[in-house]
Amino acid sequence: MNRNGDPELLVRQEEPFNAEPPLHRLTERFLTPNSRFFVRNHAPVPRIEPESYRLKVGGLVERELALSMEELREEFDPVSVTATLQCAGNRRDELMSVRAIPGQVRWGAGAIGTARWKGVPLRRVLSRAGVTASEARHVAFTGLDRVPNGDGTFGFGGSIPLERAMRPDVLLAYEMNGEPLPPDHGYPLRAVVPGYIGARSVKWLGEVRVRADPSDNHFQPRAYRLFPPHVTAETVRWDRGLSLGELPVNAVITEPRPGARIARERARATVRGYAMSGGSRTVERVDVSPDGGESWHTAEFTACEGEPGVWRLWRADLDLDRGSRELAVRAWDSSAGTQPENVAPIWNFGGYINNAWHRVTVHVGGSGEGA
Amino acid sequence: MNRNGDPELLVRQEEPFNAEPPLHRLTERFLTPNSRFFVRNHAPVPRIEPESYRLKVGGLVERELALSMEELREEFDPVSVTATLQCAGNRRDELMSVRAIPGQVRWGAGAIGTARWKGVPLRRVLSRAGVTASEARHVAFTGLDRVPNGDGTFGFGGSIPLERAMRPDVLLAYEMNGEPLPPDHGYPLRAVVPGYIGARSVKWLGEVRVRADPSDNHFQPRAYRLFPPHVTAETVRWDRGLSLGELPVNAVITEPRPGARIARERARATVRGYAMSGGSRTVERVDVSPDGGESWHTAEFTACEGEPGVWRLWRADLDLDRGSRELAVRAWDSSAGTQPENVAPIWNFGGYINNAWHRVTVHVGGSGEGA
Repeated sequence: MNRNGDPELLVRQEEPFNAEPPLHRLTERFLTPNSRFFVRNHAPVPRIEPESYRLKVGGLVERELALSMEELREEFDPVSVTATLQCAGNRRDELMSVRAIPGQVRWGAGAIGTARWKGVPLRRVLSRAGVTASEARHVAFTGLDRVPNGDGTFGFGGSIPLERAMRPDVLLAYEMNGEPLPPDHGYPLRAVVPGYIGARSVKWLGEVRVRADPSDNHFQPRAYRLFPPHVTAETVRWDRGLSLGELPVNAVITEPRPGARIARERARATVRGYAMSGGSRTVERVDVSPDGGESWHTAEFTACEGEPGVWRLWRADLDLDRGSRELAVRAWDSSAGTQPENVAPIWNFGGYINNAWHRVTVHVGGSGEGA
Repeated sequence: MNRNGDPELLVRQEEPFNAEPPLHRLTERFLTPNSRFFVRNHAPVPRIEPESYRLKVGGLVERELALSMEELREEFDPVSVTATLQCAGNRRDELMSVRAIPGQVRWGAGAIGTARWKGVPLRRVLSRAGVTASEARHVAFTGLDRVPNGDGTFGFGGSIPLERAMRPDVLLAYEMNGEPLPPDHGYPLRAVVPGYIGARSVKWLGEVRVRADPSDNHFQPRAYRLFPPHVTAETVRWDRGLSLGELPVNAVITEPRPGARIARERARATVRGYAMSGGSRTVERVDVSPDGGESWHTAEFTACEGEPGVWRLWRADLDLDRGSRELAVRAWDSSAGTQPENVAPIWNFGGYINNAWHRVTVHVGGSGEGA
């Protein structure tokens, strides 16, 4: 039993704590139980006394605010939003198999989860503070964790465009699946930004700041940026990187597991998984291949309509010929965007945004082999 | 000299007229001259008398309107928008090289162009008509061309979501690059929907209708839908297709031309092209490969900041080794989305949305070979 209460959680790092669920458990339910939700921490979890906690709101506002949890709960109508959070490093292990990525957490494809979040729409808090400055363009979040920023300051941070922040689905959340936020998920308050990389949903939220420019916290200008394969940690010029925000379309096979043996001469295998897109795009189709991408079958969605910022779970029943079979999956989103075929051409030294076709090899065997 | 006044325009079909510019001309300028702008018509160009012309506005509105060109020009403040229009069938020729696609125009990669459009924001007209019905969700356009719809009605049509229609960059345009709309481009009035497939920017606009559902015109439910490779015209179930709207990220090499011979033992070649994304996404990076995708170089943008709905032109200077060299290009957009590698896995019987890496083979030769 690890500290999150789920004995099956795969711990990728003990301190700071980083963990993800095993893939075959991930899509058992549409909403991911809190105990099984991936944890991505950059420093030890801060201990925050809810009574003395205040959320600071400042920057390009008419009135600076310092809101207690009681004020956030009592003075703003609560709103619930279902949203999937996905780490920008989800599926990094496949990139690491192409070429080493030192100093980064080795994530499988489980650094994603979906919860029902309850809290205050960020725009309600911003409108109480008053955002009228014509130069206001970004909203920056800073956490109360003790992540060093290299300049003497502390706290993990990042920002989103003001236009995104003003949409009703961006929350300052204090509940996750009907429970107070667990400590590993940002107690007592976190940002939730659907459709963006998880890093922008800052946990243990200490400050919200309206700015003319994106956040200058370390994790906005000097991390979470995408570079081509020829750029390395030694040659990087950070300002030339693609600053990650909205996620692209992605899909993953969660069942069967890699290396699974399937008995019978000609097997009908059920393949399951998740698919997700970012921004205001929805997942529109999932194709599953029994032969590494030579041919495709359209999967069925098993839960819910396509909604922006929320994953879709899918299944497909495939006839598999005897032998080693490479299953593959790709999704299409509402912008007719799909995924790159292979991991190598999208390798990047930060190990971010692996959305290549997800491939799982299984063995369809003869007599005597287990399922 | 063809009817568009540009002797170099490549005519893909005489009647209805369909034509595109040669690729190496396409990126000579940021704005595409009207005479060189691709034309995609589904029927002969209708002759419309501007004096008797009326734009009908109806459906889920409080007041039906019938607006003359004079009213559109005089009673609404004109707005100018720079926008790229791209046919959903752009680059169909590469799909056709994989497998035949009968009955569709064989487009190269020139079914795209950028113009400065002037007209009335659609939302101004909609607010004069009054859109208050809670079930209003889509805005349908119908043209005055005589395209048969199979049910006895005529006119090419399609729709966009109301939310998209209410943004300030969706125009009812009467000017293109400072001139009245040319007949082939929709005189006297057309829709311009940046970031969407060109088909939604309906020409010779006769009617705008606010609806609860997407357009029921032939070209919304039974064309411009994306299917997986195993679906054919014979097996299609149209309601299962991905209804095309927002475009995905795409990039094309316009120079050098395919088969170009480049003299010198080791040549430094300038590669140029365009890149484009859809929705509210911007092109953030273009990678160019001198070796079919084994290695990549980051291109420079040669004009303008990245803006939603507008292409970016780029160039890269590459050292090329002697022999046959496959150049390739791929773009990345602000959602960290990129393009699929190969054409075959995205083949679809409609021949839509080819955004695989664009590849051009050139020959880097020894003595005696011309540039």
